[in-house]
Amino acid sequence: MAHDPDTPLPPLRYAEGGVTAARGFTAAGVAAGLKKTGRPDVMLLFSEQPASAAAVFTTNQVAAAPVVVSRASVADGIVRAAVANAGNANACTGAQGMADARAMAEEAGRRLHVPAGEVLVASTGVIGVPLPITRVLAGIGEAAERLEGTPADSAAEAIMTTDTFPKQAAVTFESQGRRYTMGGMAKGSGMIRPDMATMLAFVTTDAPLTAEACRAALAGATRTSFNRITVDGETSTNDTCLLMANGAGGGSPIGPGGGAFEAVAHALAHVCGELARMIVRDGEGATKFITVVVRGALTDADAETAAMAVAGSVLFKIALFGGDANWGRAASAAGASKATVDPDLIEVSFGGVVTCREGTAVAFDEEAAAAALAEEDVEVVVDLHLGACEATVWTCDLTYDYVRINADYRS
Amino acid sequence: MAHDPDTPLPPLRYAEGGVTAARGFTAAGVAAGLKKTGRPDVMLLFSEQPASAAAVFTTNQVAAAPVVVSRASVADGIVRAAVANAGNANACTGAQGMADARAMAEEAGRRLHVPAGEVLVASTGVIGVPLPITRVLAGIGEAAERLEGTPADSAAEAIMTTDTFPKQAAVTFESQGRRYTMGGMAKGSGMIRPDMATMLAFVTTDAPLTAEACRAALAGATRTSFNRITVDGETSTNDTCLLMANGAGGGSPIGPGGGAFEAVAHALAHVCGELARMIVRDGEGATKFITVVVRGALTDADAETAAMAVAGSVLFKIALFGGDANWGRAASAAGASKATVDPDLIEVSFGGVVTCREGTAVAFDEEAAAAALAEEDVEVVVDLHLGACEATVWTCDLTYDYVRINADYRS
Repeated sequence: MAHDPDTPLPPLRYAEGGVTAARGFTAAGVAAGLKKTGRPDVMLLFSEQPASAAAVFTTNQVAAAPVVVSRASVADGIVRAAVANAGNANACTGAQGMADARAMAEEAGRRLHVPAGEVLVASTGVIGVPLPITRVLAGIGEAAERLEGTPADSAAEAIMTTDTFPKQAAVTFESQGRRYTMGGMAKGSGMIRPDMATMLAFVTTDAPLTAEACRAALAGATRTSFNRITVDGETSTNDTCLLMANGAGGGSPIGPGGGAFEAVAHALAHVCGELARMIVRDGEGATKFITVVVRGALTDADAETAAMAVAGSVLFKIALFGGDANWGRAASAAGASKATVDPDLIEVSFGGVVTCREGTAVAFDEEAAAAALAEEDVEVVVDLHLGACEATVWTCDLTYDYVRINADYRS
Repeated sequence: MAHDPDTPLPPLRYAEGGVTAARGFTAAGVAAGLKKTGRPDVMLLFSEQPASAAAVFTTNQVAAAPVVVSRASVADGIVRAAVANAGNANACTGAQGMADARAMAEEAGRRLHVPAGEVLVASTGVIGVPLPITRVLAGIGEAAERLEGTPADSAAEAIMTTDTFPKQAAVTFESQGRRYTMGGMAKGSGMIRPDMATMLAFVTTDAPLTAEACRAALAGATRTSFNRITVDGETSTNDTCLLMANGAGGGSPIGPGGGAFEAVAHALAHVCGELARMIVRDGEGATKFITVVVRGALTDADAETAAMAVAGSVLFKIALFGGDANWGRAASAAGASKATVDPDLIEVSFGGVVTCREGTAVAFDEEAAAAALAEEDVEVVVDLHLGACEATVWTCDLTYDYVRINADYRS
């Protein structure tokens, strides 16, 4: 994803419509009775014409049935539709779970007249409870009937679990002289950490990407978005991020590399970044959106490792909840990571207020620091003063409400 | 630390007196005004005769000044005294912090008529605030005057920070036909995870261990005690565990290896295990003491990795706070670890109630599970059914009070 800084990419324009903003995509969410609240919980996403695709999945060895099924179906680079349910993760559900995941793909394929092998399946919710498959299948049928003319909002809502708001983003961008659209939706608010999380994301574009270009663009985009956020350090069994490119915007096929590809990759990285930051902003019980920047690291990997360590520190996240400029916990978390750190060089600032320099407390304006920490958005910069590498990670604070939400999730 | 199971070790007998239970050790804690509460906060521990010693320290690259000073002083295997303060960690305090740590050793040495290089220094408390060194030095002087006849309780209290109770343990044991004593004290209740934690531990024995034997015994004992507990996954800047052996119990010098050494190592592992479990039981805000056993792992390292992952899962710890037999989170945490896991073989039980077998929910007695989870002590067993290796880790639940305690610690 390296881009020549002398050749500015054409600007992105914000668009409406989320996962159906791009031409040739329809989606609908319906209430199939999986959520006790009666809110939408089954989602169908459809490309009217064949689409190239790529997906990334959880790295957890305990992968849910839909992940196992979808890994196989996306392997050939063609996905025509996606079906998802919220309220039940279909994870740790054994042979029945596998049969249920396949039944979801088959029912979606039958309703949409596409092969089941071209349908990606995703589930999110409680682990270890058999899927109420009859309801899910009925929901799929209903969603298929409502695809035409339904705004994407119901689809975005149907994948929510503990999320408090639907997450959608879309942009238009120029590539090879044409204007394309890239849009998507995501869910996730807890169990969020790098290498994916309890998150589902579906991104669509009408640019004519090849499957190989989809894979390259998605790998680059997730590295700087979904893999740079952490809510609670947990890696879920169900994480899935799908990119579909149906070429409905016309033009020649775009393979990986070159200017046309770079424009698409830039738009994808933007949409994924927006969705990722929305997930953090909706972190379970979160009251603050925290940007952790580590600079001055010896290597990019060190910068990322140290930033993830600071952003992942339970104690540090609780200090920020308490409005406490506890730079000692930031320095300690960086020092406990595998990144090379010289304790006598560390500098830490909160919202621009330097609180520690050369590893030691400096006199700082406590009022200014308190004001910065009282904001909803807080930026913490840890400068290791060792090299020129930098990484940014987004996280949220850890609060009483996070404990409350997760103390009785299963019941 | 391998022991021939056919040769039973002589039984241990519980003893009173903590860190001064062994002959020839005295200790005292005094209130020097570092704690706002006016409780004891400066501690002195002294061996009347020269003692062999070994210590292990935090792995955090941001090591506090006392750790840097003490690493050097213990390197020659001789420690005659230890001085510690609570309420201020003397970490991230720069050159002044180093000077203060050295001043503590010098003042203790001066008062006790031993070289400063034979005094171990430890501090625990808030990071990044200069030590009120005048008060600390006055406290050292006062403690030195009180060494004779003071029970160990004041010393155990003087190293406490957020601890709610002092932690002491002692046993007597037989080795080479004599009866020796091993006793110790520890502090710690948050920022506790493997590779040491915000914990200080001081263990003394009157057995005549060589310095080499001290190192070997301490390495073995910490591996199965302080490195097998986790409260919140944080690695502190100040962790220190000291073993002093003064030989006041008589007998020939005991080197590493052989029956006499094994008897001492066994007693040390017992005392360290007791202290480690007390730390978990006093976990900040904890309401439950949780024993996580992983068995059926392919290797010892896998068993330990998986057990630490389950015990370290924030979501799992919150589920136990909520009394929720959420085996899915245990399976997910094990699966997200580097240990080899086959999701279709995992078995999980809570207090003997099997909730998941072959990676899938089984019908279980919800009442029995709820009763097991309502206990203060909960045992969770994750059987990977892959091999014969097993590891046990101790942790506690994560509660509202943990958040409260840590949201305003600095202020």
